[in-house]
Amino acid sequence: MNISDISEFAFIERLSSSFAELLPRGFTGIGDDCALFPKSAQESYAVSTDLLIENHHFYRNKIPPYSLGIKSLAVNLSDIAAMGAEPMASFLSVGLPKDISMDWLDSFTAGYKALSLKENVPLCGGDTTASPHICVSVTVIGFARNEAIRRRSMARAGDIICCTSNLGDSGGGFLVLQSDIETGADEDFLLKRHYEPYPEIAAGKWLASRRGAGAMMDISDGLVSDLEHILAASGAAAFLNLEAIPLSAQLKRCAERHGWDSLDLALNGGEDYCLLLTVAKDEFAGTSEKFFEAFGRPLFPIGGIEPMMSGGGKIRFLQNGKETAFTGKPFRHFR
Amino acid sequence: MNISDISEFAFIERLSSSFAELLPRGFTGIGDDCALFPKSAQESYAVSTDLLIENHHFYRNKIPPYSLGIKSLAVNLSDIAAMGAEPMASFLSVGLPKDISMDWLDSFTAGYKALSLKENVPLCGGDTTASPHICVSVTVIGFARNEAIRRRSMARAGDIICCTSNLGDSGGGFLVLQSDIETGADEDFLLKRHYEPYPEIAAGKWLASRRGAGAMMDISDGLVSDLEHILAASGAAAFLNLEAIPLSAQLKRCAERHGWDSLDLALNGGEDYCLLLTVAKDEFAGTSEKFFEAFGRPLFPIGGIEPMMSGGGKIRFLQNGKETAFTGKPFRHFR
Repeated sequence: MNISDISEFAFIERLSSSFAELLPRGFTGIGDDCALFPKSAQESYAVSTDLLIENHHFYRNKIPPYSLGIKSLAVNLSDIAAMGAEPMASFLSVGLPKDISMDWLDSFTAGYKALSLKENVPLCGGDTTASPHICVSVTVIGFARNEAIRRRSMARAGDIICCTSNLGDSGGGFLVLQSDIETGADEDFLLKRHYEPYPEIAAGKWLASRRGAGAMMDISDGLVSDLEHILAASGAAAFLNLEAIPLSAQLKRCAERHGWDSLDLALNGGEDYCLLLTVAKDEFAGTSEKFFEAFGRPLFPIGGIEPMMSGGGKIRFLQNGKETAFTGKPFRHFR
Repeated sequence: MNISDISEFAFIERLSSSFAELLPRGFTGIGDDCALFPKSAQESYAVSTDLLIENHHFYRNKIPPYSLGIKSLAVNLSDIAAMGAEPMASFLSVGLPKDISMDWLDSFTAGYKALSLKENVPLCGGDTTASPHICVSVTVIGFARNEAIRRRSMARAGDIICCTSNLGDSGGGFLVLQSDIETGADEDFLLKRHYEPYPEIAAGKWLASRRGAGAMMDISDGLVSDLEHILAASGAAAFLNLEAIPLSAQLKRCAERHGWDSLDLALNGGEDYCLLLTVAKDEFAGTSEKFFEAFGRPLFPIGGIEPMMSGGGKIRFLQNGKETAFTGKPFRHFR
């Protein structure tokens, strides 16, 4: 059996169970957006680490190096945001082919630095080496008050499922960069959403400390896949209202123009890096209103958490209240 | 200009100065074995991160996966040891080609776990992804009492320079694996020293808190290159007594058998991952004696720190007290 025969999740599960015995009390290991370990009686550190590989996560001749610098940090800040934590320091390791130009490197660094400055996260260390392909490994350490930490296991039956932005734009951007279609303003918008995800640090911290806040994670693999992680961790099921899934006007126009399935992109495209969270039903209206006041944009209610069903799928898809068959594609990193 | 035209150190210097303005008070950023940030008024966290790339740091058809698992963690634990810190948690990210077998992966994991268990360091998180070549990125977080932290800048004129083990074995092992020579017990010994470095965590912690302890770092690039880092950070010069450089019997025999320069391997081979430190002259005898009592092996005095010279090289090489010309080769990661 080769690594391509198992999913990333199966591999992580294998690692996680193998090392579980070593975890001290107060530590949370593999299995959430971040690992957690105690800072004080009231606070914990949250650690996220992500590896971006050329020709797998990005193409050198497509992504501007400035955008790659932003994205390398953003995907980790997004994990920190998903725990309700605040980033404190980043560590950057890069493997670079010999023919990378100093201009490329300076643009990459400028992008990484622009987001570091914007979110006030110092780069504190790292490693550099030669490599046949570009690979970028970033680790971010953050911290959070223990009572505000949002775990995947915190969804409860009755909770409203919501997300903090339109879904599928990044997946659309990925289709644009893989094709030879002529790009206009709409396609460029989607590309930018794919290349320069916006980590929801302020929103994550704000939402995490609201009364009624339940589970939270960031959407990296895709709504369906990521919601399934919340359901597995919380021992729950869910329904999604397909007509409520927020889609940008740009994605809708591109889908029509290029024959894409915008709903599939929203459910399975991945790399949206917005927040997926659950909020207790009777707190949702207040939270949603206050969120709009604080951030000037809506919190989108897209479904609900239900008690675990015996047998059958864990997510029911509803179209205007009527159950419909929609099969989420599994996400497999090693294919 | 391409990345291959500058050294790793020039690149790190470029990054470091670019981000210096973002560092909060109490943080130490790029430029030592570990980054440091405050844990409490008395303690700091130390963070190390290293990237190992197939065909650059190792060859898949040469290094046993069990050894690669050990080495991936060991090189980071060695950085933690070099600060006088104690490791607390590790994070492992791996990029794997599709044709990696589950047996390979299980052996790799077993090696990583064996060292994790030995040094009691839990694996707390990471990332996995497909990649055209194997790449392994490990981050280790440790902590130390502030007064025991050993920085590269802490060498003082008059200090004795010492190391904690024989030098050059790993460099010899690298020559073995690159050649087609028939291997016997000596060659296998060197290979094992190259593949499975021993992180000096207990010795590092012990030495760091000794009275008279000065600068400390681990020997990864090679004695000359690494000592130069201490000298640059401390604003000092040094001499090395070439006849005092400790060489294993195995390295000496192999050097004779295969026509190697064992001294060059000891000075420039790198990847020894033992500790290089300075000790105040009047404390050295006591420290050395107590070190032998505690660890059953000697602390090797190999030279001394001198005041900065005006102009000229920073390291003088002495052979039985007489100055000799020995040119250290610079280490360049991007060649």
